[in-house]
Amino acid sequence: MTSPRPVEQVLETVDNSLDQSLDRLFALLRIKSISTDSAYAKDCVAAAEWLAADLRTIGFSAEVRPTGGHPAVVAKSPAATGPHALFYGHYDVQPVDPLNLWETPPFEPRIAAGPDGAKRIVARGACDDKGQVMTFVEACRAWKAVTGSLPMGLTLLIEGEEESGSKHLFDFVKANAAELKADIAFVCDTGMWDPQTPAITTSLRGLVYEEVKVIAADRDLHSGLFGGAARNPIHVLSKIIGSLHDDQGRITIPGFYDGVQELPEDVRADWEALDLNAEGFLGPIGLSQPIGEKGRLLIEMVQSRPTCDANGIIGGYTGEGTKTVIPSDASAKISFRLVGGQDPLKVRDAFHAFVRAQLPADCKVEFISYKASPAIQLPWTMPALVGARAALTAEWGKKAVTIGSGGSIPIVGDFKTVLGVDSLLVGFGLDDDRVHSPNEKYDLKSFHKGIRSWVRILDALAA
Amino acid sequence: MTSPRPVEQVLETVDNSLDQSLDRLFALLRIKSISTDSAYAKDCVAAAEWLAADLRTIGFSAEVRPTGGHPAVVAKSPAATGPHALFYGHYDVQPVDPLNLWETPPFEPRIAAGPDGAKRIVARGACDDKGQVMTFVEACRAWKAVTGSLPMGLTLLIEGEEESGSKHLFDFVKANAAELKADIAFVCDTGMWDPQTPAITTSLRGLVYEEVKVIAADRDLHSGLFGGAARNPIHVLSKIIGSLHDDQGRITIPGFYDGVQELPEDVRADWEALDLNAEGFLGPIGLSQPIGEKGRLLIEMVQSRPTCDANGIIGGYTGEGTKTVIPSDASAKISFRLVGGQDPLKVRDAFHAFVRAQLPADCKVEFISYKASPAIQLPWTMPALVGARAALTAEWGKKAVTIGSGGSIPIVGDFKTVLGVDSLLVGFGLDDDRVHSPNEKYDLKSFHKGIRSWVRILDALAA
Repeated sequence: MTSPRPVEQVLETVDNSLDQSLDRLFALLRIKSISTDSAYAKDCVAAAEWLAADLRTIGFSAEVRPTGGHPAVVAKSPAATGPHALFYGHYDVQPVDPLNLWETPPFEPRIAAGPDGAKRIVARGACDDKGQVMTFVEACRAWKAVTGSLPMGLTLLIEGEEESGSKHLFDFVKANAAELKADIAFVCDTGMWDPQTPAITTSLRGLVYEEVKVIAADRDLHSGLFGGAARNPIHVLSKIIGSLHDDQGRITIPGFYDGVQELPEDVRADWEALDLNAEGFLGPIGLSQPIGEKGRLLIEMVQSRPTCDANGIIGGYTGEGTKTVIPSDASAKISFRLVGGQDPLKVRDAFHAFVRAQLPADCKVEFISYKASPAIQLPWTMPALVGARAALTAEWGKKAVTIGSGGSIPIVGDFKTVLGVDSLLVGFGLDDDRVHSPNEKYDLKSFHKGIRSWVRILDALAA
Repeated sequence: MTSPRPVEQVLETVDNSLDQSLDRLFALLRIKSISTDSAYAKDCVAAAEWLAADLRTIGFSAEVRPTGGHPAVVAKSPAATGPHALFYGHYDVQPVDPLNLWETPPFEPRIAAGPDGAKRIVARGACDDKGQVMTFVEACRAWKAVTGSLPMGLTLLIEGEEESGSKHLFDFVKANAAELKADIAFVCDTGMWDPQTPAITTSLRGLVYEEVKVIAADRDLHSGLFGGAARNPIHVLSKIIGSLHDDQGRITIPGFYDGVQELPEDVRADWEALDLNAEGFLGPIGLSQPIGEKGRLLIEMVQSRPTCDANGIIGGYTGEGTKTVIPSDASAKISFRLVGGQDPLKVRDAFHAFVRAQLPADCKVEFISYKASPAIQLPWTMPALVGARAALTAEWGKKAVTIGSGGSIPIVGDFKTVLGVDSLLVGFGLDDDRVHSPNEKYDLKSFHKGIRSWVRILDALAA
């Protein structure tokens, strides 16, 4: 008998120590590290300290480091030759409201059976992001247990403000750029394609978020006295919002599509094979017809095409019953998801110009500009991606797909901008994990095979 | 020397007793008869009792009569031959918030000097409607003082719920129809055309008020995940509101203009001569361009043409900052001012059909129907109108105009429907009276010449 390759031993160790891995995850899940509520500031510190202490047991030199807000954990492996990776995750969690919808207390983790009998970990943060972070930590631990050392040079950056907008992370990365420098970043905060199909997220849509207020008269008016003569800002704003899309589902803002690229043929073929269909994607939310650009795949609409949505609108009387008012102003929040090479500042300017061009006499407009981040498109051919894809395919027994994410993960842009490093986005969340909602869960399979997946990825990339 | 006609003596008596008339008005103004707040229910009763007692001193048999809410005052003159008139007004007043904007306490009436030095009565209710009601009461008192009797058969109906929607008035009028029957109704709750020009309101726009909710997905969605594929109800609702008017300012709902009539030529000529212009009408509210139908006079737009206004809109996230949500629904309150023979129920149905016809796939719509009242058009040639117009012209030294009111006064429709009686709407309010607002006032001239005007109208119509 030949001795098994180390990776096989490490995987076996993962299997044999799953209960202890779960114990550790549960300990972390019990800490109420809600970052958006200052009442839990001490819990955030406690979570950071728990992680640092745990990482030290695997050989990392780990510190809880101050930021302008909740602290970040920075953990470094002993100096090593070969490639160096920067792992990113977050220990903070979403608030738990509405508490009455939780079947058991959100910070008392438990194993429950899902509808199909499969085991799941239920707790706030089970998936997002404590469970995901611990898949990586446990993979490191298993490597260390079997080989006595970590398989490659690693730095872990685990922040505590992701759920409150990562307010201090950019500055922290910038201030510590030399220390955080790496060849590749691992980000574990995304999901599988479906419960059988592992996925690497290679594109993230950018975001431009604007608030627009249309102002007409200098006070609210009585519609009996002024109706028929006075400009109504709700009508003006509605007309503008109503004109943002044409009847082909395309956005009408001049120049909006500048920088949008078509998918490479092979990616498009992969995506077509995934067969994301309206019934499966929209059916569960009570819809049936995709409203995106005519002639596009549904998966393109949500992953690789830019969008425009009014996220909120308000004006005039919105209480119960009636009030015959013509309001002085009306406001809307409008956001754009960007893809490819779209320039967020140009999109913002084009939107402002589009609104101003439609503004009738006697109207003023005011804008509040919130986020403006570009899309991220990772090179489909980067070696880390190829290696990770093979590792995931080996673990799950099904070809790993490269997908896009409709949402944004700003840290990925920051890593590129500040550190010049591309990110490998691998995660094991599922669509039904109820992230940000009551009864958040993470499948035990996600956790277990997630650890195994990182064992294999580290093996593949350490070489 | 011939003895003066009685009307001249009565007018002289009005002039000579103005201080006492003011004392009585002040006594009524001191009563905090706010009808919308149950904390003031006793004050409402007190105001009704004060009026009944005062009317008894002029020879009326006056009673405070229960309704389902605040009581109504009904006062009857002794039986008389000749025409009988029903006077309507209200003793209740609007709330006083925001109290801190009042220069002096709202229920401590005072005489102040206006910007031009002219005296004004300042108090909540000074104009609306206690001051206006007392112009009529004081005219009756002067007639009684000079001639020993009232000049014609009169019934006064003074309610206490006008500012809270006259909730019980229709039933009260219906239940007491035989008793309230009259040849003509006088309503004193309107205004002058301008400080020099007396006016009789001969048309009142009707009102159809609807709430429309557009529903798409069965829950709020994350715009990163679903943006580009999922129907956004804010866009759908905006498009519908944006399509309510064409670029000529006309309302696009099929059949909406059915029953709308053109003005008689002489009325149109009168109105043209009034020269209501954008600078004067819209300038003070910060606007410059009327938005009504192209080719119409501004005065037509606000008095004799139907309108459509969104009075409120809400959907999605409307707090501070950003939330990347595609809401499940969006709602708007939409109202229509009706004129001429427009049928409110047909307008409502046409609006519903208009919305449904524009509803895309996957959207549902729900309506809440509030008010639906037709417009009132009084006969321009009715004898009471001709007589009152001459009386007003004589008093003010300027031709009295017949105008339309953009708003609604539901009691006028009720009088027509239940009692079969037309209303003569005469009032002395001015645009700057700050009705419903802090520092409400009524010019001393409005009060004084208002009393004199009713003296003359009673003289003209009693014949």
